Amino acid sequence: MAAADRKYVVGVDIGGQTTKLGIVDARGNVLAQSVIRSDTHDDVNLFIKDLATAIRKLADQVEGLATVRGIGMGVPNGNFYRGTIEFAPNLKWKGVVPLAQLLSDEIGLPVALTNDANAAAVGEMTYGAARGMKDFIMITLGTGVGSGIVIGGNVLYGHDGFAGELGHTIQVRKNGRLCGCGRNGCLEAYASAVGVARTAREILETTDRPTVLRDIPWDQITSKDVADAAQQGDAVATEIFNFTGHLLGAALADFVAFSSPEAIILFGGLTRAGDLILKPVIDGLNESVLDLWRGKVKVIFSQLKENDAAILGASALAWEL
Amino acid sequence: MAAADRKYVVGVDIGGQTTKLGIVDARGNVLAQSVIRSDTHDDVNLFIKDLATAIRKLADQVEGLATVRGIGMGVPNGNFYRGTIEFAPNLKWKGVVPLAQLLSDEIGLPVALTNDANAAAVGEMTYGAARGMKDFIMITLGTGVGSGIVIGGNVLYGHDGFAGELGHTIQVRKNGRLCGCGRNGCLEAYASAVGVARTAREILETTDRPTVLRDIPWDQITSKDVADAAQQGDAVATEIFNFTGHLLGAALADFVAFSSPEAIILFGGLTRAGDLILKPVIDGLNESVLDLWRGKVKVIFSQLKENDAAILGASALAWEL
Repeated sequence: MAAADRKYVVGVDIGGQTTKLGIVDARGNVLAQSVIRSDTHDDVNLFIKDLATAIRKLADQVEGLATVRGIGMGVPNGNFYRGTIEFAPNLKWKGVVPLAQLLSDEIGLPVALTNDANAAAVGEMTYGAARGMKDFIMITLGTGVGSGIVIGGNVLYGHDGFAGELGHTIQVRKNGRLCGCGRNGCLEAYASAVGVARTAREILETTDRPTVLRDIPWDQITSKDVADAAQQGDAVATEIFNFTGHLLGAALADFVAFSSPEAIILFGGLTRAGDLILKPVIDGLNESVLDLWRGKVKVIFSQLKENDAAILGASALAWEL
Repeated sequence: MAAADRKYVVGVDIGGQTTKLGIVDARGNVLAQSVIRSDTHDDVNLFIKDLATAIRKLADQVEGLATVRGIGMGVPNGNFYRGTIEFAPNLKWKGVVPLAQLLSDEIGLPVALTNDANAAAVGEMTYGAARGMKDFIMITLGTGVGSGIVIGGNVLYGHDGFAGELGHTIQVRKNGRLCGCGRNGCLEAYASAVGVARTAREILETTDRPTVLRDIPWDQITSKDVADAAQQGDAVATEIFNFTGHLLGAALADFVAFSSPEAIILFGGLTRAGDLILKPVIDGLNESVLDLWRGKVKVIFSQLKENDAAILGASALAWEL
């Protein structure tokens, strides 16, 4: 079949518990999707067989596997160059796993993979807010902080395939909170959903300021609780978003000095707080950035639908195959 | 004349007082060089005429202008995309000056320009320590701190041509010393020759620790004095280099998280201190960087001869023309 007839791609998003997959057309419509478990197979080969079966089923819902150009995967600790998952702490398959090759051998289609944030950046460039942009930085604000950096229209992978770990830059809060990576002061320990909840608990613990957040059990506060409280005008909750946004904006100022992007695109759970987070990020950036860039770098939210974004991002990789 | 017969390039390094120029062959030999003033012409057109005359004279010392492929210039505040100098505080020509076009029109050869640190990076890739490398970061440690970032074999210019201002990242010493750019805490205010002298003066002023540096008039201490004292075993001077190197290394850790380079190449006056500066930089980097990269990123000195480096760096741009 000619390449032009292969008008669909498959996007696969592998998470610790579940793997989402979908068939996507060139306009970014997810035509069919499904979910399989990623946490039940100790043997990665059995997982690959399940995944291939799920992909074939989905393809049959459109025009069959012969109309699929290729498969893109967003995976934790994915290495684009090698098509591998490498020492992923949240997956069952340990060490270096040649996931792209395994799936390609099983299903007979080309497969590319990268980490989730890079996939989100490619998705944004292909279907979302970064269409037409050549130089931008995607920051994903979820449980952690991820990043995908696009330079000259290409994702930055660096010498070893692992470039773009901006959640683990540590200058913004030197000797600050302990991060999951074992170091102190990572951006991820502050500007993530978990970071917002930690900031809330710190304030509740170290002050006696009144806030509706005290009505929630201390160890169960989430970033959504903080956003809800701020939206109701709670002063402490508003301050938490101001602190988080300013800190993230200050970190972005150094990223701008590195690659001078046209835009910074924010994605993920924390962006549901809307202007509560966006305004202090923009203020923090413009307060900290070199004159040259003040007011010139766009800071915008993703335009991918959140439910489809992981599949879309992964699928976008496959158009390049 | 065929391109293959054009076997030389011209490198031009424009500084505030003087402009150095030289004819360079493909192996990085500077075959002829000269110097003209850059601070005597209020009218940039007169400077361009002087420069063209000097280039023709140099070319006559080898095999004539017909054997020159093109001209590369390293200039303060240079914009590679536009071939312009833009609002350069240390030059007489104000605003936006289309320097590459002016020289090309005058002399009939293609001309490219970029800032000094980017030129140094291209020079290192063409003739120096980065031959064969595709991903590295050049850090120039002179009066200020400059940087040239190479990604996939290309200098990173970013959306507007001004990427790579790593001397003006400010997270490493938040709210720290005032920098020439008007902000506080820039890397440049610490990790430059001027920064080392400022650190020395701070210690002399705020402590009564004995050091041979007290024999030098307080306002005349230079980074060379500090290096000389450290080489003689002076404890305060040694500590100044340890502080400077660790701080620079910690900043480099965040740069590594951005672009995952194969190497970081240090260049400029401060590198004359040798291991006094190199060892604490490497220690600071490895103490701060994510596990993934610990011990894996080379930190090395430039291999360009310091006297020729500015001309070589600028000239290297011209091979791409």
